[in-house]
Amino acid sequence: MSSPTNHRIRLAARPHGEPVATDFQHDEVPVPSPGAGEVLLRTLYISLDPYVRGRMSDARSYAAPMEIGDVIVGATVSEVVESGADGFAPGQVVLSYGGWQEYSVEPAERLRRLDPSVAPVTTALGVLGMPGFTAYAGLLAIGAPQPGETVAVAAATGPVGSAVGQIAKLQGARAVGIAGGERKIERLRALGFDEALDHREADLPARLAAAAPDGIDVYFENVGGAVWDAVLPQLNEFARVPVCGLAANYNATSLPEGPDRSGQLMGAVLSRSLTLRGFIQREFVPSMFPDFLRDMTAWVAEGKVRYTEDITDGLDRAPEAFVGMLKGANLGKAIIRVA
Amino acid sequence: MSSPTNHRIRLAARPHGEPVATDFQHDEVPVPSPGAGEVLLRTLYISLDPYVRGRMSDARSYAAPMEIGDVIVGATVSEVVESGADGFAPGQVVLSYGGWQEYSVEPAERLRRLDPSVAPVTTALGVLGMPGFTAYAGLLAIGAPQPGETVAVAAATGPVGSAVGQIAKLQGARAVGIAGGERKIERLRALGFDEALDHREADLPARLAAAAPDGIDVYFENVGGAVWDAVLPQLNEFARVPVCGLAANYNATSLPEGPDRSGQLMGAVLSRSLTLRGFIQREFVPSMFPDFLRDMTAWVAEGKVRYTEDITDGLDRAPEAFVGMLKGANLGKAIIRVA
Repeated sequence: MSSPTNHRIRLAARPHGEPVATDFQHDEVPVPSPGAGEVLLRTLYISLDPYVRGRMSDARSYAAPMEIGDVIVGATVSEVVESGADGFAPGQVVLSYGGWQEYSVEPAERLRRLDPSVAPVTTALGVLGMPGFTAYAGLLAIGAPQPGETVAVAAATGPVGSAVGQIAKLQGARAVGIAGGERKIERLRALGFDEALDHREADLPARLAAAAPDGIDVYFENVGGAVWDAVLPQLNEFARVPVCGLAANYNATSLPEGPDRSGQLMGAVLSRSLTLRGFIQREFVPSMFPDFLRDMTAWVAEGKVRYTEDITDGLDRAPEAFVGMLKGANLGKAIIRVA
Repeated sequence: MSSPTNHRIRLAARPHGEPVATDFQHDEVPVPSPGAGEVLLRTLYISLDPYVRGRMSDARSYAAPMEIGDVIVGATVSEVVESGADGFAPGQVVLSYGGWQEYSVEPAERLRRLDPSVAPVTTALGVLGMPGFTAYAGLLAIGAPQPGETVAVAAATGPVGSAVGQIAKLQGARAVGIAGGERKIERLRALGFDEALDHREADLPARLAAAAPDGIDVYFENVGGAVWDAVLPQLNEFARVPVCGLAANYNATSLPEGPDRSGQLMGAVLSRSLTLRGFIQREFVPSMFPDFLRDMTAWVAEGKVRYTEDITDGLDRAPEAFVGMLKGANLGKAIIRVA
């Protein structure tokens, strides 16, 4: 019997704009062995997340960039194959950070055991994982929506946006969701958003103004670009803007043409006493993660927060699914099923 | 004996860019009489403040614009001439909001009695008034400097900036002051700023980086423009930016040329978890003004916070002194002595 091989996808070149096939390199290497305190994992599911595009670049960001030749990073749901660590036995399913490959060896302290009887294990990559926590922490700690206030969010069918809107509703706020295309708008209505706006249709600024007649008190920013341009004039005095992502800019290769509106943006911050606050969810892990797991697990179990998954089969299709996600082709949490 | 007249300066036209003489109209009207609950005041001192430039325009802002024909607004220190209100007697000195004129009638409830034995009455327009409170509230409530952190402020010899730097020092932080011209730099050194940078000299970005080797944790924004461009790259993760004013933009008549850096600004907010928070001091009056008066009065009495006044004699010179202040020609709090 030949020894099993580990199929991997590595960073071949830093993308210039939208990633293309030659930015990724597929290879096969022997399956590694776990050392003491380590666990060999077989990848079941890989999470596709927008932040990974940032890590492919070498621009200054909140996380160190990948190096050329590195396996593409990403959270994974995996099964223990061989354990060199107490408390992990073959067959157990864990949340891991194996990246785009079939097998990985990881230190046991970085793994979180998953209980399939509580929720489908894929939710650890979405509504009960980093995206759900991003929504929970950013909305509650920074946005702090009050009953009767209006909360707007874009990419609203995505794993972060859909949780933002539904948690806002649970706080007694009005939820305005923005997304691209008819099936996403239908999904937003099904999820209970008060208003659902298609950013692909004409005149988003006027439609947004009509959908938020009392203005916007919290805008959960995860896209930037034209949606932000439409939101900014609608922000009320003392509005809060948790800045979680700027997906519209991730593939940009140069600054947009002028005029320079950065001073105008600062003017809006001043004249309306706005709060813009960038954040990465890990900042809030020590103070909020236990509350998140308790609240969100209950909300999901009770059907108060619903989620959507968009699963693509096959590790080889990860690059195309990733590029599609950056363009919004997915509906819900983008996941690769590997095994 | 002819009845006395009230010399006034009114808004003749909305300035296009820097205000010019024809934007102001001088006139004389009979001195008004106070009704019940009102007080006739003779203006002693007028405060010149950058926000007044904003009120000359009709752009959306945090305060309603002046109308053409209105007396130019401004805080004043005045003496009671005739009182129709209990508790106010002729000769008493009050903080008022009489604007650019020799006499005003104001409702008693808008006046604050001043005690010349506690501090010179002009301090009610500066270090113990709105500018001092702006510094205190913005720095402590939003900036929240911690011991050992670095606080930067521009227009640092102005009534807000000089208080910001000195309060930062009292909190155990390092104070970096930015101002224009040699005599202002000398003043900053005399006030105890750890670093004093002249923004008129070449290569501010490099000098600022050298003056803040551990980065900047709090930037009290009151100017915008080139100073902000130099500060932004130096802001540390989790830095706080109380946005109090953008004097560099007040005379702008159009957006600057491109490229458009507003998306880049949002990217910095995201990647370094920055907080940009616009504010007007009145938001903090209910929660912080009594503490401010107590702390700042003590600090001034003890010499821990020092202040500088730049007094111009004569109401007629208010327009030129105001324009000069917008360009930074003053050293310290700009005040017109009327009577």
